[in-house]
Amino acid sequence: MTSSGLRVKGKSSLNATLTVALDAMGGDHGPEMVIAGADLARLRYPQVRYIFFGDEARIAPLLQRRKALHALAVVHHTDSLVSNEIKPSAALRSGRQSSMRLAIDAVAAGQADCVVSAGNTGALMAMAKIVLKTLPGIDRPAIASFLPTSRGETVMLDLGANIECDADNLVQFAVMGAIFARTVLGVPEPTIGLLNVGAEQLKGNETLRSAADILRSIPLPGSFHGFVEGNDVPAGTVDVVVTDGFTGNVALKIAEGMGKLYSGFLQSTFRSSVMARFGFLMASGAFRKLRARVDPRRYNGGMFLGLSGVCVKSHGGTDAFGFANAIGVAVDLVAEGFNDRIQEELKRLAPAQPPATLAV
Amino acid sequence: MTSSGLRVKGKSSLNATLTVALDAMGGDHGPEMVIAGADLARLRYPQVRYIFFGDEARIAPLLQRRKALHALAVVHHTDSLVSNEIKPSAALRSGRQSSMRLAIDAVAAGQADCVVSAGNTGALMAMAKIVLKTLPGIDRPAIASFLPTSRGETVMLDLGANIECDADNLVQFAVMGAIFARTVLGVPEPTIGLLNVGAEQLKGNETLRSAADILRSIPLPGSFHGFVEGNDVPAGTVDVVVTDGFTGNVALKIAEGMGKLYSGFLQSTFRSSVMARFGFLMASGAFRKLRARVDPRRYNGGMFLGLSGVCVKSHGGTDAFGFANAIGVAVDLVAEGFNDRIQEELKRLAPAQPPATLAV
Repeated sequence: MTSSGLRVKGKSSLNATLTVALDAMGGDHGPEMVIAGADLARLRYPQVRYIFFGDEARIAPLLQRRKALHALAVVHHTDSLVSNEIKPSAALRSGRQSSMRLAIDAVAAGQADCVVSAGNTGALMAMAKIVLKTLPGIDRPAIASFLPTSRGETVMLDLGANIECDADNLVQFAVMGAIFARTVLGVPEPTIGLLNVGAEQLKGNETLRSAADILRSIPLPGSFHGFVEGNDVPAGTVDVVVTDGFTGNVALKIAEGMGKLYSGFLQSTFRSSVMARFGFLMASGAFRKLRARVDPRRYNGGMFLGLSGVCVKSHGGTDAFGFANAIGVAVDLVAEGFNDRIQEELKRLAPAQPPATLAV
Repeated sequence: MTSSGLRVKGKSSLNATLTVALDAMGGDHGPEMVIAGADLARLRYPQVRYIFFGDEARIAPLLQRRKALHALAVVHHTDSLVSNEIKPSAALRSGRQSSMRLAIDAVAAGQADCVVSAGNTGALMAMAKIVLKTLPGIDRPAIASFLPTSRGETVMLDLGANIECDADNLVQFAVMGAIFARTVLGVPEPTIGLLNVGAEQLKGNETLRSAADILRSIPLPGSFHGFVEGNDVPAGTVDVVVTDGFTGNVALKIAEGMGKLYSGFLQSTFRSSVMARFGFLMASGAFRKLRARVDPRRYNGGMFLGLSGVCVKSHGGTDAFGFANAIGVAVDLVAEGFNDRIQEELKRLAPAQPPATLAV
């Protein structure tokens, strides 16, 4: 595998050295996957340095075999790790010396510029909130990610950090999502849609209608399209889809599951006859391109937006290629000064906004 | 097009004559589509009779050309129709003589056994609630439909009738969905899942946890699997997915949109090179089967469950084939005594259930 398929989004102006803290013990495939992922990311970002947090006895031999990465890496040993099963509250209490927590601490202490983990999402969010704190003007952080659409890619948030959201939360998500689309997707004037059950202004509940009223009245880093429906997400009607964490989580998982379902249907179609097998062989070059286009590893990385520090969650089951993309997103967010841009945008909004709604 | 692709689900014990009231003016393609659909449905259900409500000047010439259908049909003329843009409340006030309303009235008056319309969903639900009333023991009707999964088909409800639901609503949806899976999908012991953001018992909000507690404690027409996540829907983890109308509507539309997105990707893949075009020609037989398997017209028909009368909503944009499937679902529900079975099940549940929760 080469680096040619790694996602290249915003025009990273990455001149200075930058350090990424990695939870080497997170994810289903442990340090092997994390270190192989960092080695892949190194090909695109040769000036990035890494701190691996975790079991040195497992990490060191893996680094020995990758000299170029080894030269850019240090290992911070810890025996403790956060399991996938533990609840966020328990992880907060008992995980102070875990690889995940120490990697986040490194960002708070200024030893690293960002943190990437493929571990327990709930624990990562809980620890990141406690350690990094939310940005001034943001009440709650959100999880954002990309989805493939017929027009390219769409950012959706929140994907599960906040089961219930009020109108102000949704408005803040819209601002963060739009800056994210500018920063990482390189869309200068992103369009923003609020996910609802119909496009008409009277649809949905009071929270959605109230969020829409605010979004129509304030200056935004992009433009407010209005309400969008579920089918607008894969259609790519807007660049940023804003929703609460419950709906967003269900929507993301349905979209991923439908992708798998159709891949499965396609495979069984090509296996269904000798002629179909021949057909697949003839079209296999084109299918490689299709696979690359819908490869879930390209869309790997849930970005925790709204924290005073860059924290990216990789899928637990991903491979080195997917993990390298998650590192790439974290590096882009740091290099593009994502959090500074959010701060600027919130300051710009402040005069137009009553203090109770979006305090800065 | 022949009737061979029409969905054949439950073992319809359709001996007696049965009458379907059809809103001939509903849908994007008007009476032409409705009448062609009824003519297709006739091939599978030769003993069903039809009452077409709408503009006789448009309906009569269409029936003239279809002698076999004509012999089974009567036309009830009305000039009035419900537009797609009108709000439910306005349709209730001004649409008393509309083709939609008169078709529902025919069920309430016992002139027809069920009603099918491809018109305005909100207006249809509002009118059906007012005219047909909810079944005793059911607080709110729900919209249900099928989705294709890797294991076959799953019923999901509510798909948009109730933006907010309490625990009792969700429990009632579970009972209705399970009887639906038995009746129309022919699954003797359906499994039921509550859509949530995680499978653990502590996930989600109070409403979901409370609904799960009730579902774990009462005898059900099937078995309660517990919480399911978005990806469990296309995976076919359970036969019945229960959710509120907001989440269900977004989930359904995302799933439909992803299907379109992948079809589009596939088409552009096959057009991308001469070799790929040849490949498609060789595999075209297998692809016809795939298309039939994921054909959205097979999944056409939102069933309004929980009303004292059978009412099925067809997609507005469907064609005759899709509309014939919607008629088929309505006929199956009547023939299998769906509403009687819900009543029996609720009576059976009543002793195990405090009256405040599920009053019968």
